[in-house]
Amino acid sequence: MKNIAILGSTGSIGTQALAVVKANPTLFKIQVLTAQSNVSLLIEQALEFEPDVVVIGDEDKFTELKEALKHKNIEVKAGINALCEVVVLPSLALVLTALVGFAGLKPTIAAIKAGKDIALANKETLVVAGDLVTSLAKEYKVKILPVDSEHSAIFQCLVGEKSAIEKIYLTASGGPFRGKNIEFLSTVTRQQALKHPNWVMGAKITIDSASLMNKGLEVIEAKWLFDLEVDQIDVIVHPQSIIHSIVQFTDGSMKAQMGLPDMKLPIQYALAYPERIQSDFKRFNFLDYPSFTFEKADTQTFRNLALAFEALNKGGNMPCIVNAANEVVVAEFLNEQIGFLQMSEVIETCMAKLDFVQQPGLEDYYESDKQTRIFAKELVTSI
Amino acid sequence: MKNIAILGSTGSIGTQALAVVKANPTLFKIQVLTAQSNVSLLIEQALEFEPDVVVIGDEDKFTELKEALKHKNIEVKAGINALCEVVVLPSLALVLTALVGFAGLKPTIAAIKAGKDIALANKETLVVAGDLVTSLAKEYKVKILPVDSEHSAIFQCLVGEKSAIEKIYLTASGGPFRGKNIEFLSTVTRQQALKHPNWVMGAKITIDSASLMNKGLEVIEAKWLFDLEVDQIDVIVHPQSIIHSIVQFTDGSMKAQMGLPDMKLPIQYALAYPERIQSDFKRFNFLDYPSFTFEKADTQTFRNLALAFEALNKGGNMPCIVNAANEVVVAEFLNEQIGFLQMSEVIETCMAKLDFVQQPGLEDYYESDKQTRIFAKELVTSI
Repeated sequence: MKNIAILGSTGSIGTQALAVVKANPTLFKIQVLTAQSNVSLLIEQALEFEPDVVVIGDEDKFTELKEALKHKNIEVKAGINALCEVVVLPSLALVLTALVGFAGLKPTIAAIKAGKDIALANKETLVVAGDLVTSLAKEYKVKILPVDSEHSAIFQCLVGEKSAIEKIYLTASGGPFRGKNIEFLSTVTRQQALKHPNWVMGAKITIDSASLMNKGLEVIEAKWLFDLEVDQIDVIVHPQSIIHSIVQFTDGSMKAQMGLPDMKLPIQYALAYPERIQSDFKRFNFLDYPSFTFEKADTQTFRNLALAFEALNKGGNMPCIVNAANEVVVAEFLNEQIGFLQMSEVIETCMAKLDFVQQPGLEDYYESDKQTRIFAKELVTSI
Repeated sequence: MKNIAILGSTGSIGTQALAVVKANPTLFKIQVLTAQSNVSLLIEQALEFEPDVVVIGDEDKFTELKEALKHKNIEVKAGINALCEVVVLPSLALVLTALVGFAGLKPTIAAIKAGKDIALANKETLVVAGDLVTSLAKEYKVKILPVDSEHSAIFQCLVGEKSAIEKIYLTASGGPFRGKNIEFLSTVTRQQALKHPNWVMGAKITIDSASLMNKGLEVIEAKWLFDLEVDQIDVIVHPQSIIHSIVQFTDGSMKAQMGLPDMKLPIQYALAYPERIQSDFKRFNFLDYPSFTFEKADTQTFRNLALAFEALNKGGNMPCIVNAANEVVVAEFLNEQIGFLQMSEVIETCMAKLDFVQQPGLEDYYESDKQTRIFAKELVTSI
């Protein structure tokens, strides 16, 4: 029985993780659930899974939560700092970080320092501070188990392999706007961007997929997870999303992990690692997919992917700047305050204008994140 | 330094294995080379690799071989029985069995009983006597490392995995006659059948690929190598031959091994296992292969694949009968004595007419093999 904390239990990854836990009651016990603001769903989940502790990020909703759970033996907490307290519970084995954005960094570091293995769905943690987080994971001997389907694919392909990686290919669906030109992109709406062709995901990552920033963030995440140089990472557009990513070894042999696009699989893999659990997930059938296609990513039209590679090459706090600027522009795009192409423009301006720090520490990341958000919002306002 | 014996060193697998050894002189030492009849190439190889022993199957060529190597400190032997003597040399670590057909069975068993790991390129050994050979391998604690690209792919995908296999997909190029109908097949020539679209291989396996018998033999081989039930094995036609085979685990996740079709890779993998060796083999590039396609195998037109499944379902000595009949018909087809479609007809008649043994021992296999060859030759003569 593995005791699990889910940070961000009401989001897309969180709810799917709970479905996996529910299907395997003898393997997993939910010890901690947290949500930012969806208090009604958090209450429902708490009543069903009976964790030891729940945390609501939005402190205004503490009373509602407390009241709803008053007859249960469940500790109730509120606020961002509570996240760092609940991930250190002694009997906890694994923390699934399914928070969105930079907010995942602090509790992830707290969990690592407490020696907890991390199932990482919050890629921004590694994008912003990959060097720091992976060093800490090594120091505290904790495993970072990727939940992103691409990184889970690479991780699965590496199981049992002693040989060095020569190269990885992260596959990209290309999103809803694959093959479209700049003119088309200048007119696209929030609704169009939220329709991902293959994957069911949260709003932020769905917009990131449409702009290819998601793939850019994944490139940075992969660099840290698998200890790679930038030129060992390639992106290939594979619109069917069946091959989830590929590793090429030094003998030239390649291994790919494949399957229907269903996030429950990588979530379950991360929770159950090193075991695999028999599942009733729908199986892939080759006859339903007579063709897998591959094409080069169009980084001329989808600038974000090129910007992410640029940030990774530059290093230091540049990925942190890109991430913060991106979080701002995606929120503003979802609020219909800026257009699709303006997202890249704001990010690029932030990269050019904000202070570069070659060897940032944790405080530098916080500062960089803060300054970038302020500046990006100013840029948005001036558009 | 790993001491290696190559049985069948002058064939397609043997020569490619020697190329791998030559490229890695600090890792491998050739201790034994054997050939059936190509004495001039065997002499050349012996002079270059300086093994401790060489064996020529054809006893008429012993003198020529002996004479050519008289100034070298190389023991020279002849005849089939010598194969069983040389695979037991104490300092030998690995025996690559690259003989063609039933002839591989006896020396493979001798090597297993001497505790030598086997790099198995001779699939007929497992087709004929898979139960016996895999039981012996377990008893003598030797590894059977597949050299066939499909089985190497499955083997590579299983490295480090603790979970049971749910299913495997063996990929098939479909051969040179994919999509053709019975009428077309009734007219095809030896030359047409010897032109494989993707792989460079020996004559026998190339004909087997054209008739899909190769895939049928591989299904039987896979059953024994990976301890599977028949309904856990599926065949999917993938004309580009980039995905070499696929494993599906009990959680629904699938792993595929991929790369350009180059037998040197699985050969090197088997020789070097559990390591991978850096190689200069040409790397795969997605942009050269914008599409992977998949289709169902046409077992109506290519009867051999259906016959192999039937033999595996029936069990006992039936795969042995299929293999022996197939060896006869392929030789006769290569000698232009029978047509392409008549190969299946002869095999099917052999399956119907020869004595079925439910639980054969080694002697039964020899008897079955002998009787089938006699009967198949009679059938060919009567055509």
